[in-house]
Amino acid sequence: MPTKPAYAELTQHYTRLHRFNHLAAMVGWDRSAMMPPKGNDARSAAEAELNALIHRNRTDPRLGDWISRAEDEDLDSIERANLREIRRDWRQANALPESLVEAKTLAEARCEHAWRAQRQANDWEGFLPNFRAVLDLARQEAQLLADDTGLSRYDALMDRYEPGVRAADIDRIFGDVVGWLPGLIARVRDKQANEPVTAPVGPFPIEHQRALSKTVMTRLGFDFDAGRLDQSTHPFSGGVPEDVRITTRYREDDFLQSLMGTIHETGHARFEQNLPREWLGKPIGLARSYGIHESQSLSFEMQLARSSAFAGLLSPLLSEHLGPQPAFEPANLARLLTRVRPGLIRVDADEVTYPAHVILRYEIERPLIEGEIEAEDIPDLWDRKMFEMLGLDTRGNFRDGCMQDVHWPLGLFAYFPSYTLGAMYAAQWFASMRKTSPDLDQQIADGRLSAVFDWLQTHIWSQASRWETPELVRRTSGSDLDPAHFRRHLEARYL
Amino acid sequence: MPTKPAYAELTQHYTRLHRFNHLAAMVGWDRSAMMPPKGNDARSAAEAELNALIHRNRTDPRLGDWISRAEDEDLDSIERANLREIRRDWRQANALPESLVEAKTLAEARCEHAWRAQRQANDWEGFLPNFRAVLDLARQEAQLLADDTGLSRYDALMDRYEPGVRAADIDRIFGDVVGWLPGLIARVRDKQANEPVTAPVGPFPIEHQRALSKTVMTRLGFDFDAGRLDQSTHPFSGGVPEDVRITTRYREDDFLQSLMGTIHETGHARFEQNLPREWLGKPIGLARSYGIHESQSLSFEMQLARSSAFAGLLSPLLSEHLGPQPAFEPANLARLLTRVRPGLIRVDADEVTYPAHVILRYEIERPLIEGEIEAEDIPDLWDRKMFEMLGLDTRGNFRDGCMQDVHWPLGLFAYFPSYTLGAMYAAQWFASMRKTSPDLDQQIADGRLSAVFDWLQTHIWSQASRWETPELVRRTSGSDLDPAHFRRHLEARYL
Repeated sequence: MPTKPAYAELTQHYTRLHRFNHLAAMVGWDRSAMMPPKGNDARSAAEAELNALIHRNRTDPRLGDWISRAEDEDLDSIERANLREIRRDWRQANALPESLVEAKTLAEARCEHAWRAQRQANDWEGFLPNFRAVLDLARQEAQLLADDTGLSRYDALMDRYEPGVRAADIDRIFGDVVGWLPGLIARVRDKQANEPVTAPVGPFPIEHQRALSKTVMTRLGFDFDAGRLDQSTHPFSGGVPEDVRITTRYREDDFLQSLMGTIHETGHARFEQNLPREWLGKPIGLARSYGIHESQSLSFEMQLARSSAFAGLLSPLLSEHLGPQPAFEPANLARLLTRVRPGLIRVDADEVTYPAHVILRYEIERPLIEGEIEAEDIPDLWDRKMFEMLGLDTRGNFRDGCMQDVHWPLGLFAYFPSYTLGAMYAAQWFASMRKTSPDLDQQIADGRLSAVFDWLQTHIWSQASRWETPELVRRTSGSDLDPAHFRRHLEARYL
Repeated sequence: MPTKPAYAELTQHYTRLHRFNHLAAMVGWDRSAMMPPKGNDARSAAEAELNALIHRNRTDPRLGDWISRAEDEDLDSIERANLREIRRDWRQANALPESLVEAKTLAEARCEHAWRAQRQANDWEGFLPNFRAVLDLARQEAQLLADDTGLSRYDALMDRYEPGVRAADIDRIFGDVVGWLPGLIARVRDKQANEPVTAPVGPFPIEHQRALSKTVMTRLGFDFDAGRLDQSTHPFSGGVPEDVRITTRYREDDFLQSLMGTIHETGHARFEQNLPREWLGKPIGLARSYGIHESQSLSFEMQLARSSAFAGLLSPLLSEHLGPQPAFEPANLARLLTRVRPGLIRVDADEVTYPAHVILRYEIERPLIEGEIEAEDIPDLWDRKMFEMLGLDTRGNFRDGCMQDVHWPLGLFAYFPSYTLGAMYAAQWFASMRKTSPDLDQQIADGRLSAVFDWLQTHIWSQASRWETPELVRRTSGSDLDPAHFRRHLEARYL
């Protein structure tokens, strides 16, 4: 056995970190899904202590030396990929001086807290000073990361969410979409104007919705011996691969929100539940980037669950759990699940108009981070782009315009592209599946979902962080990310 | 402001420990109440990492010096009491060499694991070798603690659970009880033989039992904004004072088990929820000993909830949640809740026979730890004492005899007395309450429970670990623990 003392030290160190992250994931889930309100202060203090411990471990001064020495050790290709991920984590944890991290945390907390009321009050002028402080620190952060990596500022931020993906790639991909999306939306709207849709009639008791969600999750392969479904104000997927915790929220008048949300989170959950067991505890064993993760939730929610084929499977389950009604008839259900209507709010957007929301944000935040525009330029840009892409007027409506998302107040720049990259990856995965299974829709209609799950297992879940994102895309689907797959998917489904 | 640098270091260190203990409490609760089975291995590893971290902090080599120096600093009486508790924690964490701790953990895990099947199989001979190893290590541990404190072996162990209480106290108290308990049991049995009792008729749907439990908990002052009720195989009270997690288990055919269990845990919970906020995070802010904690659960379950007065409050709640039936009539309910029947199993025992089970165990484990008897002497002693005190024959029945409890296989010696000390403290508290509120039973019957809660708040909850146990007892009730209160309580209720 070749000796790899530095690599062994790293492995031991990251195993410990993995266990601390396990604790953080669990108490974080508990805070959102279980904790009563008066527990908040003590919990915040306990979580802060744990986060400080995790940060100390990620910035342990011995790590730099271990990483350098491990580079010269006799590692196999898996160990080398793991070392690459260790280096990425170490670089991100160490790139920023403590003082900048603290200033960012404070500025973001202040901005986000004030934003909650300012958004309600449509108070852009009140928001601007806090936001300028957040932006200024984000630029400093981006510059330090850029100095450290040789990337541009925006690329350096994006590398956290999509390792290996650059703004030049995004420009190419989103530039293509901008060319055809507005026209596509108009044609879909024309077509749907003449299609009658019957709306479901509630109320739908929460207990029945919960049972329906669990039935559908089981149908989609969620392992309830290795996870749970609970409720929280903001649905999320958390926990650890051996014990995945997903949440949803219920409205008595609308079961589709919780159901489609649950299906979305089930896609995230199956990625986690099926990460390779032999890599758990190592950075290589973590799920690949945000965009790849989103490609799993959208494979489940968009590619699979909003298809006509799946509507036939869903229909009897709805009748069984919620009582039969005309709206649950498969053809009507499929129309319900694919209704397109441009709107102001990203999180309420349908599959077709959603990319417009993301592209708009990317086209503003990239020059914002690079220093080409300033915070006060945002509203005009927002108004113009929203009108160009979705034909909507947002002038003076900051609340439902540039102040609608929590991301920028929290200093989360370069995150938005992952949402639409995820949708595009998912379309590319399903195009690949159709090559090997030309009758995929028939299989889905028959309830034989293994063609989908097996492909995802082989090409995505089992790969974890084995490859950087662009390399993973090439290996799984034979080519770089190509927005033509997404376009063909939308045209096939909506025209 | 006087400078107290060493005390300040200790405060900071124990605040950090408190936060780690918060995390441990929460993931421990989660493991028992929420975690799906496949999460177990990863959770065990994460908890072990956290426990190791906590142990490192409790044994930090700087602590001894800080404690010595703090003794000479200008501390007020509260700080001095806090320092006393810090010293106790530090001494307990450091008394044992790492190798003994590891050997104990291994031997106890092995013994407990094998015991589960051996108990079912009534296999005393198979159990004995594992148990001898556990006992041998417990004696070594007790000897080291004794050397460190100047106490006897058994006293040194008991000081962990009941600070300041000694075997000489227990001998005096239990010796008194042995003198009158068998006679009392016989008289109660005679009396109850002629009292008809109507049994409740099930099934009682779990959802209705859950709603009943929550109603009763609210009636008893449990703050659901600072805690939760959930389910687990073995009910317990956990969490942290700001966020207390209690659990119960439900049987469709018997609602009294879950209801009385919930009331019991609610007593523990109110102690925790009402610990003084200004001491939280300091050892002085922790709930006093196991016996004092049990005095709260038994104040709720035994003193309050099994009283005739309380049966009148409970009766309409049962009818409301479970549907009316003759068994819920107040007088019948009171008889149901005070039925006495000697049995082999401690955890199933009623209020009157329970002390016999505890005294029997104490009379065996004290000489066992002191080396006056050996493991193989246990069955004969058990048989003899069980016959003397409860008139039951346990010969050859190890399963329902000396192998019934998990405590000894786990090396938990000197813990049993706390159960009955708790019952006796509770009786002494209620005797004190009756002195200031001679109409206490009428107040309870009227649903005015504040006389009980206010007394407990003032005398117990607000005191936390301000005093060692015997001092607390004297201050709250004007005298040392006196079993005459317990005797009078039993005679008043059962004769």
